[in-house]
Amino acid sequence: MTNLVTYEDASEEVRTVYDDIKRARKIDRVSNFWMAIANHPPTLRRTWESLKEIMADGALDIRIKEMIYLAISINNGCEYCRASHGASARKAGMTEEMFGELMAVVAMANETNKLAEGYGVPVDDALA
Amino acid sequence: MTNLVTYEDASEEVRTVYDDIKRARKIDRVSNFWMAIANHPPTLRRTWESLKEIMADGALDIRIKEMIYLAISINNGCEYCRASHGASARKAGMTEEMFGELMAVVAMANETNKLAEGYGVPVDDALA
Amino acid sequence: MTNLVTYEDASEEVRTVYDDIKRARKIDRVSNFWMAIANHPPTLRRTWESLKEIMADGALDIRIKEMIYLAISINNGCEYCRASHGASARKAGMTEEMFGELMAVVAMANETNKLAEGYGVPVDDALA
Amino acid sequence: MTNLVTYEDASEEVRTVYDDIKRARKIDRVSNFWMAIANHPPTLRRTWESLKEIMADGALDIRIKEMIYLAISINNGCEYCRASHGASARKAGMTEEMFGELMAVVAMANETNKLAEGYGVPVDDALA
Amino acid sequence: MTNLVTYEDASEEVRTVYDDIKRARKIDRVSNFWMAIANHPPTLRRTWESLKEIMADGALDIRIKEMIYLAISINNGCEYCRASHGASARKAGMTEEMFGELMAVVAMANETNKLAEGYGVPVDDALA
Amino acid sequence: MTNLVTYEDASEEVRTVYDDIKRARKIDRVSNFWMAIANHPPTLRRTWESLKEIMADGALDIRIKEMIYLAISINNGCEYCRASHGASARKAGMTEEMFGELMAVVAMANETNKLAEGYGVPVDDALA
Repeated sequence: MTNLVTYEDASEEVRTVYDDIKRARKIDRVSNFWMAIANHPPTLRRTWESLKEIMADGALDIRIKEMIYLAISINNGCEYCRASHGASARKAGMTEEMFGELMAVVAMANETNKLAEGYGVPVDDALA
Repeated sequence: MTNLVTYEDASEEVRTVYDDIKRARKIDRVSNFWMAIANHPPTLRRTWESLKEIMADGALDIRIKEMIYLAISINNGCEYCRASHGASARKAGMTEEMFGELMAVVAMANETNKLAEGYGVPVDDALA
Repeated sequence: MTNLVTYEDASEEVRTVYDDIKRARKIDRVSNFWMAIANHPPTLRRTWESLKEIMADGALDIRIKEMIYLAISINNGCEYCRASHGASARKAGMTEEMFGELMAVVAMANETNKLAEGYGVPVDDALA
Repeated sequence: MTNLVTYEDASEEVRTVYDDIKRARKIDRVSNFWMAIANHPPTLRRTWESLKEIMADGALDIRIKEMIYLAISINNGCEYCRASHGASARKAGMTEEMFGELMAVVAMANETNKLAEGYGVPVDDALA
Repeated sequence: MTNLVTYEDASEEVRTVYDDIKRARKIDRVSNFWMAIANHPPTLRRTWESLKEIMADGALDIRIKEMIYLAISINNGCEYCRASHGASARKAGMTEEMFGELMAVVAMANETNKLAEGYGVPVDDALA
Repeated sequence: MTNLVTYEDASEEVRTVYDDIKRARKIDRVSNFWMAIANHPPTLRRTWESLKEIMADGALDIRIKEMIYLAISINNGCEYCRASHGASARKAGMTEEMFGELMAVVAMANETNKLAEGYGVPVDDALA
């Protein structure tokens, strides 16, 4: 049902973004995510510019950033994002052992988050 | 309103866990979280044993694990967990610059997760 | 796996609600949502009565209401509701340009919500 | 605990953004949200630029956009965002009657979203 | 900041609902929740009628219903609802031991829900 | 895409857990969930041990526990968990009438949770 804007059907404005994505990511074809949000060109441009800026090596290297991105996507139950950032994280060096530990942390955090909420734990004076 | 089980009021079973936490964490007093879930001793024991096992250096070092834990806690809106794991992550070496980048990734992931859901983006063949 | 209660198999109580939905919505057949919750007739009746009352023109017109309904359904990751209220919103006059802007707002809100939570921003005195 | 970057302590980069916010919003002092995310200047700049672009009249007017922003903030349980966008929405013309209807829609959407998930309702053929 | 509609300031329409709540719950004063949603009288009336119908003994007794209500409220991070339904559940017979077990289940469910999502577990043929 | 670890391919460590699950649950084959998390053996072992301990009769009987587990899984939108714990709850004695009432409570809780958040209801003095 989702309309995907192919390169052929894209306006100049959209093609410029597609070209930049393909160059930066060294790929031949942009993924479905970009072709979907291209239905609203300002969202395509803004999202790509933000992502390009954020997902670069900085104080945190790209592997860690992709793992955090994946952890949040799983936490939000976004199936597309899990598939997409799972692939990106593996490409950036995440091993299956690392993924196993990431999942253990994500699951444990959800467990203790609910315990803290359920028991209404007050923040420790030392942390306030 | 929350009843916190102090060391003085704790049963032997609870004290044993408190002692192990204090030894492992090199602290004098367990934090409010442990004193709250101690109202149900099996939950205290099981949660501590799981946390001790998961939050150790492995394929991922403890700093990365604490940052993922913090990211999830923020994502879940758990105020206590944000305070507590913010402190743990900083203790494990997270700088303010790293935290700034972590937050940028968490916020961006939430933005694109919703775009992917809203546009109903189908998973790319290459990722399926 | 879900049992859908068809008009043929429905009790009088359920048929009465189906008839009212068909009349109000000017449709020949109630959608799967109603046929699923008809497994619990009191839920069917109560949900329809509430929806009929809420989703009428008031201080907000039906187009705005359907757009808010759609925004929440996307935010909650409910695939059925996204499909269903996406159709209702378009029927009530939402254009693709409007949907593009709605999605930009939903995505942006999720981004800044997480930033506010992660930085633990205190409510401004002027807003308290 | 949150460090708020005041105008006095801000770098030139941060002050430039603060000045633009004050001009655009016709206010004397930026709100706590901006002073908190100013701890990471690239996030401050990017967030403001995105918000300025998105929260302008377009196919949807600013009142509707602020109401959708508020609805999502409430749905996400973000207290700061509820206070802040509640004020913005009222400033943009949302009456208390409109807010009452907005809340009725938000609450109803959450109720039916869960019913759809719980009964595992398949998407109607007509919507697929 | 929230305007609470007291009995003195309430319209006849609102007072009628307040009276019914007080009678049904055998209390002298309705709780803040009702006084807050009374700002939108149709929401007050509809919510009370629904709650009265749902929260009665049926195939499930009221104690189990209140425990499920509490579990969901904790899961959603709603502080008011946790306080309010924690009190109702205890009044309906939930002991502290039962609450401890309820929390263990809630926390465990959150842990395994995330594991299932993260590993993208396909539904077993026997369950499909 | 998900790799499921079959009994044939499993290590001794994993087989030991599988055998214990099969014995405890009186089944011939462990479900996909266990075969998926077996990709990280410590997670398999820890999750099974926790689940075995928590999901036993206690102050709450197993039927109530499975219903709470199901309610949370639906609330979290976890499709696998809904299918799996829906089956477990029915096996433990949940009738369709009970499921209908469970869903009514879950849906109602979500509705009132959002109303309480949206109106920013302060906790009653009597509950604080």
